[in-house]
Amino acid sequence: MTIHDWPTGPYPARVRIALAEKNLQSRVRFVTVDLYKGEHKKPDFLAKNYSGTLPVLELDDGTFLAECTAITEYLDVLDGPATLTGTTPREKGVIHMMSKRAELELLDAISVYFHHATPGLGPDVEIYQNAEWGLRQRDKAVKGMHYFDAMLQRQPFVAGAAFSMADITVIGGLIFAGLVKLQVPAECTALQAWYARMQERPSVRNRVTMSAPAEASA
Amino acid sequence: MTIHDWPTGPYPARVRIALAEKNLQSRVRFVTVDLYKGEHKKPDFLAKNYSGTLPVLELDDGTFLAECTAITEYLDVLDGPATLTGTTPREKGVIHMMSKRAELELLDAISVYFHHATPGLGPDVEIYQNAEWGLRQRDKAVKGMHYFDAMLQRQPFVAGAAFSMADITVIGGLIFAGLVKLQVPAECTALQAWYARMQERPSVRNRVTMSAPAEASA
Repeated sequence: MTIHDWPTGPYPARVRIALAEKNLQSRVRFVTVDLYKGEHKKPDFLAKNYSGTLPVLELDDGTFLAECTAITEYLDVLDGPATLTGTTPREKGVIHMMSKRAELELLDAISVYFHHATPGLGPDVEIYQNAEWGLRQRDKAVKGMHYFDAMLQRQPFVAGAAFSMADITVIGGLIFAGLVKLQVPAECTALQAWYARMQERPSVRNRVTMSAPAEASA
Repeated sequence: MTIHDWPTGPYPARVRIALAEKNLQSRVRFVTVDLYKGEHKKPDFLAKNYSGTLPVLELDDGTFLAECTAITEYLDVLDGPATLTGTTPREKGVIHMMSKRAELELLDAISVYFHHATPGLGPDVEIYQNAEWGLRQRDKAVKGMHYFDAMLQRQPFVAGAAFSMADITVIGGLIFAGLVKLQVPAECTALQAWYARMQERPSVRNRVTMSAPAEASA
């Protein structure tokens, strides 16, 4: 399998973390798509993913899988039972709800802020910006941090008692927050403590260097 | 189980169609949340769904499940094997990708257009509008119609050879397009033919009357 991504990107992080949680790193090779050159908006890449977003997982049969949730669903059952997306109906429902909520209220909101109310990927790539919309999304993300903090005051992980895809999506959100220098409010102590615990997971800690050639990391 | 929704809403349609496809109608009761009174943005409802969107499925244990994809994941395996969300890794990946793409490029885009560049739910509910953003989303949705048309020229259903959650999401998009009088372009003949076939499914045809009391439909 081939992953088309950008090593430090927040959405690529979601798939890299899932890959490592499933111990599937050795089965993929990575191809870098240069975001700052806008390669993800050019015809070659759009033929792989109509929406022009990273990451994309290319299967050995030539299928291109885009969208982090879809790729995670694929990887989660590739070699055995699901461990990230739930097994019972209730688990599946709650994990998908919390992961989607983490997109809506945090990760996607920060992405819109970055692309619309900051220089983003630069003037050659950001050909349309709507700063007012971007700033509202930033405020929504900060509010979202308080929501996830409240959840994590009551339970150890975003979707309940176990680590899941929903945690990975919130991690993606906080990675993006770090890149755009949007601080987690000091009063969000449960969210901060949870994030510190997440950094201890090898899947999270090693996500960027995962794609380095073996000789480079030796 | 209880579904909190608005009978003619495009997002509620996604869950009503899934429910009927799984033959689970008799196991739920419906409670109407009045969108035009903004009930979905008031504290009572926000306690059920932080994001303030419909529909919400209330389980018998008191859990509130929001987000159509999450509710569909739940319903799809409640009584037996999945028939809407895929069973193999590849099916799951492709169905989730195409359903998410139908949200991004069609349904959610039309929703933003409706709430931001038309009177939407009225001035009491639409307290912030960004018309420029809304109009761009409308254009994105029309482009999305061409994309799904191209897919349906090659295959009978949105995610391939079988009906799935991805078809339901595109149906939701075209229901919303109808409500806002955004026409499917005449040249999108495959999309139009597919949509005509979808109307023949009882799950699609009967979605609004599903919640009527038995005596009213007798």
